[in-house]
Amino acid sequence: MAVALIALDWGTTSLRGWLIAVDGTILDRRAGGPGILAVRDTDFAAAHRRFVDGWPLLPTLASGMIGSKQGWIEAPYVSCPGGFADLAPGLRATLDGALRVVPGIAWQVPGLAPDVMRGEETQIFGALESDDASGLFILPGTHSKWARVTAGRIAAFATFMTGEIFAVLRQHSILGRLMAADAMPDLNAAAFEAGAEVGLNHSDDLLHRLFAVRTLGLFERLSAIDAPSYLSGLLIGAEIAAALQREAVGGSPPTLIGARPLCAAYQRVLAAQGIAARIAGEDVTPRGLWRIARAAGMIG
Amino acid sequence: MAVALIALDWGTTSLRGWLIAVDGTILDRRAGGPGILAVRDTDFAAAHRRFVDGWPLLPTLASGMIGSKQGWIEAPYVSCPGGFADLAPGLRATLDGALRVVPGIAWQVPGLAPDVMRGEETQIFGALESDDASGLFILPGTHSKWARVTAGRIAAFATFMTGEIFAVLRQHSILGRLMAADAMPDLNAAAFEAGAEVGLNHSDDLLHRLFAVRTLGLFERLSAIDAPSYLSGLLIGAEIAAALQREAVGGSPPTLIGARPLCAAYQRVLAAQGIAARIAGEDVTPRGLWRIARAAGMIG
Repeated sequence: MAVALIALDWGTTSLRGWLIAVDGTILDRRAGGPGILAVRDTDFAAAHRRFVDGWPLLPTLASGMIGSKQGWIEAPYVSCPGGFADLAPGLRATLDGALRVVPGIAWQVPGLAPDVMRGEETQIFGALESDDASGLFILPGTHSKWARVTAGRIAAFATFMTGEIFAVLRQHSILGRLMAADAMPDLNAAAFEAGAEVGLNHSDDLLHRLFAVRTLGLFERLSAIDAPSYLSGLLIGAEIAAALQREAVGGSPPTLIGARPLCAAYQRVLAAQGIAARIAGEDVTPRGLWRIARAAGMIG
Repeated sequence: MAVALIALDWGTTSLRGWLIAVDGTILDRRAGGPGILAVRDTDFAAAHRRFVDGWPLLPTLASGMIGSKQGWIEAPYVSCPGGFADLAPGLRATLDGALRVVPGIAWQVPGLAPDVMRGEETQIFGALESDDASGLFILPGTHSKWARVTAGRIAAFATFMTGEIFAVLRQHSILGRLMAADAMPDLNAAAFEAGAEVGLNHSDDLLHRLFAVRTLGLFERLSAIDAPSYLSGLLIGAEIAAALQREAVGGSPPTLIGARPLCAAYQRVLAAQGIAARIAGEDVTPRGLWRIARAAGMIG
């Protein structure tokens, strides 16, 4: 099988890479490279050379924050709707020609605040079952994304700050004080489910409902171990309720993309709402990069 | 006029005091004492002696976190509904008899998370126009309280984490990165009003709408100076929308209690909703302490 492409997922805190054949088959993979914030003296060229050392010299495409203002070369946002073909003209090559980066996508509608993604577009493209598939894609995380894809193009999306708000409340607010120091959310715990139910039904009352993490603890109805799970459920439930109000989830089941335990938790909460979501396979990022590279004429 | 009472507002970060006559007239006042977290070696007795030094030896009543687990003597929560008379049996004296502390109030309804206040009950009692007045009282702040008072008794209330969530997002989240380092919210700015309008209309979508603080900045539609004002408006608008769904605001105008500029901002947002709120006068805390002391037989 002819080797055709080096694909890189170069984000804020990590760098992973894949060696890909003409037909998209993954031939080799690497992980553990430095995220853009960890690149010494912002010498991205040296970090890149070290990471691909021993791999053949090939066209290279990278997605993620490497294409942001803080990265190697900035690739300005492409406007929605955006598919592989729309992104191809927005690819930016580094000055030394070592690699090209994928632009992020911006959603702008008059009268509303804009929204942005950078990196998630590539994961979504990789999760499409065909080049012109449609559907709803959910990427839970620090900044969760809910994206509507129509005929292979990202038509609209919204960001929810769920994961980051969990983290700052856990670490810096009064809600963290009644939590066990090293307790992580258990997404299978009854406390997670209880929190999710409140979040689902009271997303319009979040500033009040969050205080329950403290008061339930004060009255010994929520343990120091369970409190992070309850808080996580509350926020995820509120995200899902808000997102479902925006996105008509009809037709094909939504697709979850991301870490398996988190996707499984979203899948359970969605199931309780009567929505059957599937979880995307591994390797959506290299598959997305291969699709974009092919659309940009970088392969074959 | 016979001097009758020393009233203390002893909170987490501050200690203020008043010398009060039999009829409630304030004869002297002091501020600048140490909050309970700043009392050296938790020697509350010494801190108290220094603070009242030179004042006559009198019955002394304190409200605030001095009556919490972390304070001098714990005064367990009294259940709603709670008025002066309901609180009197819950007063707790320090072992040395130096002072008594006012208990907080807990609101507990089967099937819901409990809610608590400690210190705000005293401010509310002080803001009542008569001993058996009714009305809605709003205390904006780190943990905003909305309390329904019926015939002089706090019947129900809810806490909103508005101020604390502003602070942790400002200081610890990605939203703070596009803000000028020393920019404070300007509650009179157009950005505050714009944020408040979004918060009022989209309180069910807060996890998403918060991200606009970043994206409006990225697209240069919100300046580094205006961003804190927009975030503050967004959260306050969402609080007010959620609270108005809980509280029927009919009859007499609601009363705002707290720092004047913050109360004025709430007053403007409420006015835009067709609700005329009044702002309570100064000295609600000493007046509330005097009312409780009188009900407890500590005066005259």
